[in-house]
Amino acid sequence: MKAIPQHLLEELDVRILLGNTYHLYLRPGYEAIRRMGGLHRFMSWERAILTDSGGFQVYSLSELRKVTEEGVSFRSHIDGSSHFFSPEHSMDVQIALGSDIAMAFDECTEYPADYARARASLEMTLRWAKRSQEHFEKHKQERPWDRAQGSEKRAQEMRDQTPNLFGIVQGGMFPDLRRESAERLVEMDFPGYAIGGLSVGEPREMTREMIATTLPLLPKDKPRYVMGVGYPDEIAEYARMGVDMMDCVLPTRAARHGLLFTSEGRLNIRNRQYAEDQGPPDPNCGCMVCRRYSRAYLRHLMVAQESLSAVLNTLHNLAFYVETMRKVREELLAVSS
Amino acid sequence: MKAIPQHLLEELDVRILLGNTYHLYLRPGYEAIRRMGGLHRFMSWERAILTDSGGFQVYSLSELRKVTEEGVSFRSHIDGSSHFFSPEHSMDVQIALGSDIAMAFDECTEYPADYARARASLEMTLRWAKRSQEHFEKHKQERPWDRAQGSEKRAQEMRDQTPNLFGIVQGGMFPDLRRESAERLVEMDFPGYAIGGLSVGEPREMTREMIATTLPLLPKDKPRYVMGVGYPDEIAEYARMGVDMMDCVLPTRAARHGLLFTSEGRLNIRNRQYAEDQGPPDPNCGCMVCRRYSRAYLRHLMVAQESLSAVLNTLHNLAFYVETMRKVREELLAVSS
Repeated sequence: MKAIPQHLLEELDVRILLGNTYHLYLRPGYEAIRRMGGLHRFMSWERAILTDSGGFQVYSLSELRKVTEEGVSFRSHIDGSSHFFSPEHSMDVQIALGSDIAMAFDECTEYPADYARARASLEMTLRWAKRSQEHFEKHKQERPWDRAQGSEKRAQEMRDQTPNLFGIVQGGMFPDLRRESAERLVEMDFPGYAIGGLSVGEPREMTREMIATTLPLLPKDKPRYVMGVGYPDEIAEYARMGVDMMDCVLPTRAARHGLLFTSEGRLNIRNRQYAEDQGPPDPNCGCMVCRRYSRAYLRHLMVAQESLSAVLNTLHNLAFYVETMRKVREELLAVSS
Repeated sequence: MKAIPQHLLEELDVRILLGNTYHLYLRPGYEAIRRMGGLHRFMSWERAILTDSGGFQVYSLSELRKVTEEGVSFRSHIDGSSHFFSPEHSMDVQIALGSDIAMAFDECTEYPADYARARASLEMTLRWAKRSQEHFEKHKQERPWDRAQGSEKRAQEMRDQTPNLFGIVQGGMFPDLRRESAERLVEMDFPGYAIGGLSVGEPREMTREMIATTLPLLPKDKPRYVMGVGYPDEIAEYARMGVDMMDCVLPTRAARHGLLFTSEGRLNIRNRQYAEDQGPPDPNCGCMVCRRYSRAYLRHLMVAQESLSAVLNTLHNLAFYVETMRKVREELLAVSS
């Protein structure tokens, strides 16, 4: 997690991290992480880890991509070296990382995409989901910690946990394609389902409509995960609609740009109006930043380009997101009991 | 402290911070900090704060400096704006910051400097020390927290503490000038004494010689402070010689460049040899970094230019410095008892 030591994430009650397969594949390399006993051990994080398939960053970061039925060839954004990701290779990499929740290798359909394009992309994603699943089931027991030394008890615990592969719904912004994608994916029987290809530039009502269209077709007793969202009010709204999991760079990236999420709305800590504001970032927040530091101090760190700025802003935004989801869970439990 | 939240500094048992008068004067400005109740309150740090006089950064960072008997005029390294620091103004700024230990405004003699230059610089530093002292004694009760709201008990405690002004010995690399500077400074009766103008490019034996020459002339029952040093073995050596205080950017700056100080010597964490080294940075260190993370992980963070790299490297180096000084104190207490 950018700028935040793991023990502070634990103190924040963060229970799961997303590991970026594309980045870890390029640096330090998945073979290196496998040799070192997996990502949990490498980064000293015993709680859950979800890994994405690598596909999204291949599409958004790498150069000279070429997509074929077999997979995607691309050049590294770091050194221009050539690489190839297929559904099978993405599974190998995620298994090597020791992921608890791996994602099927999909094609994240761009926005806007016409019906024919969305249909073709969805069909390939379903074929890739099948290949991902077959390869994953065959190799999922090859977990990296069997190779590592360390606490025998912990090693046994981790061996006992079976990793999970989630399928991903695509279908662009077409409700009938979303429904078809969901139905055909559910037939394949995954332990969890993601809705992908959202928050890619479409208006928010459209995001909501696609989620509302897709959710009822996904089994209620399995995790339902919307990828790449969102703002605090957005994630609360989707959770109330029945979404169980979401992921987003927003709380951490916004923090580094000085955008704080608070109970009173968004606050751009760079603003001159906070130069001598001795109040906490969010008067209703009990996080370690709001209990101790003023808006004036956080603004100063930002303006002076101090690295502590990213640390404190990120700590607050993460605390705000964790608290947002805690409240939603409490609310939903109250409704259901 | 770059990259490290205050509560982690407290956990590390850091008891005093150095506030850079030059930087704080330019950003956010000393009047702003005074209006907000002083630096302790602004940055949420209740332990001790020492401020430098601003002179050193004026000489090393600012542009178009002009030194006269009255003081130093200079242009900001940030926006080129014109400013003027005199002994009186430096005292006003340090008092406004609410410093616990303020430093006299001196001229840090450059290296190399010939005898005549070192003599002239020393004489001006002594005249400036006198002006610093007179102004400080007249105004030291004007502490900024009288203006601030907050815990009345804490405000009273802080009002009860009288700030201290330390004089600074100069004299270039000439033992007789160092002795003269020390003797004439001690006549002025400061509550503590610093040895300045060292670690400015001279060989280390010369630093040691100047400290050895000067220390016996400074009262043993008052703090003796060598400015701008040093490496771990250096600070241990000087402490054994009788130095009570030192300050240096080295542990934090080196950390950001991947240089870790360990019980086994210096370790450049960027080196390829650590790519899969699962040992702790320092096997003999019990700090929160060495207990949890491997050399391989720290190397990865550095190579991938992750901001967490600066946080973890700095935490370790600070812990190592704090532990170095703790051991020296223990050793000296054992010898003296």
